[in-house]
Amino acid sequence: MYIEQPMRHFLDKLASKSPEPGGGSVAALTGSLGAALVSMVANLTLGKEKYKDVQPQIEQLLGESEKLRQEMQDLIQKDTEVYGGLSEVYKMPKSTDAEKAARTAKMQEALKLACQVPFEIGLKSLDVAKLALRAAEIGNVGAVSDAGVAVLLAQACAQSAALNVKINVNSIKDEAYNRETWTRMQEVLKQVAALEKSVMELTYQKMG
Amino acid sequence: MYIEQPMRHFLDKLASKSPEPGGGSVAALTGSLGAALVSMVANLTLGKEKYKDVQPQIEQLLGESEKLRQEMQDLIQKDTEVYGGLSEVYKMPKSTDAEKAARTAKMQEALKLACQVPFEIGLKSLDVAKLALRAAEIGNVGAVSDAGVAVLLAQACAQSAALNVKINVNSIKDEAYNRETWTRMQEVLKQVAALEKSVMELTYQKMG
Repeated sequence: MYIEQPMRHFLDKLASKSPEPGGGSVAALTGSLGAALVSMVANLTLGKEKYKDVQPQIEQLLGESEKLRQEMQDLIQKDTEVYGGLSEVYKMPKSTDAEKAARTAKMQEALKLACQVPFEIGLKSLDVAKLALRAAEIGNVGAVSDAGVAVLLAQACAQSAALNVKINVNSIKDEAYNRETWTRMQEVLKQVAALEKSVMELTYQKMG
Repeated sequence: MYIEQPMRHFLDKLASKSPEPGGGSVAALTGSLGAALVSMVANLTLGKEKYKDVQPQIEQLLGESEKLRQEMQDLIQKDTEVYGGLSEVYKMPKSTDAEKAARTAKMQEALKLACQVPFEIGLKSLDVAKLALRAAEIGNVGAVSDAGVAVLLAQACAQSAALNVKINVNSIKDEAYNRETWTRMQEVLKQVAALEKSVMELTYQKMG
């Protein structure tokens, strides 16, 4: 698993012509970093006298951000796995009409699976942005810039996920699926962009 | 060095209340990922018959993106080091007026040093964005979404770096330095935002 290997290994392999890790894994890593920063703000607020009124909310925030971080970290790997699945289908024989039909059917299945991962990453980026807002609102003001960075990463994660959804949607023949997936993705992008604006305004305001 | 340790270690420590790694290191990592994706697009274009006319430019792009990636990777660590330096100054004695004066002077030095690192990260994010544009323009069209993700990361890197410049500028008493640094940072943000817009338009256009 990439996450257990040195960070340099991930960066080196990303830079290479190896098909994975790719943009989807990077989106998930970006989201993981955002969730981690929310946890950091929560941890820097926990047990502080000045923030005693919000301790239950901070504990809840930390629970949610750590759960989300774990899910995002899992998606780093999951994106490389569905990519591997897609590569297997590419290798299927296509000499006879029956083989071609079987390959096309399998390909459509694999593409939907490959689309689902960045779609999930996109949905979770919205959660990161929501948690970043709460961190900026109630967290230690000395760490508010970290809540700001968290929302910037959520935004990059959302937009990167959308690009990776788009790649797959372009090859999927199920128009209803494509329309529904892409419409939902656009809604997520709008919501994340609105949260990014709010959190950045609040961050700069609190930083003075 | 963080980059030689498992990625999980960086994420875990980031999520903790440990003062480092913080937003600056995350900005540098984000920029490193962006540079790595430019390299990936270049590597997927290198030696391809369809792109034989741009091989010299692609080789140059790869050279530049790999150099930039190395510099960004170094800044991940450098940001934690200047933070350490600042922590040392905080521990200096402040009982007598002479001690206070010495501490204040050292603090101002350390703050400028701590400001210089995210400032450099910000400047380099502009280079990542410029290389992402070239990758989107001349690189393998099958990897154009990766050039898109690269520019999104450059944008998140620039804005995160700016937040970390702002923290330091707020405590530095040299007004001329602050004005110059912050003005330059704002210019970088504008240029990166313009590049992000161009690359994203081009990416979606090329993806169809």
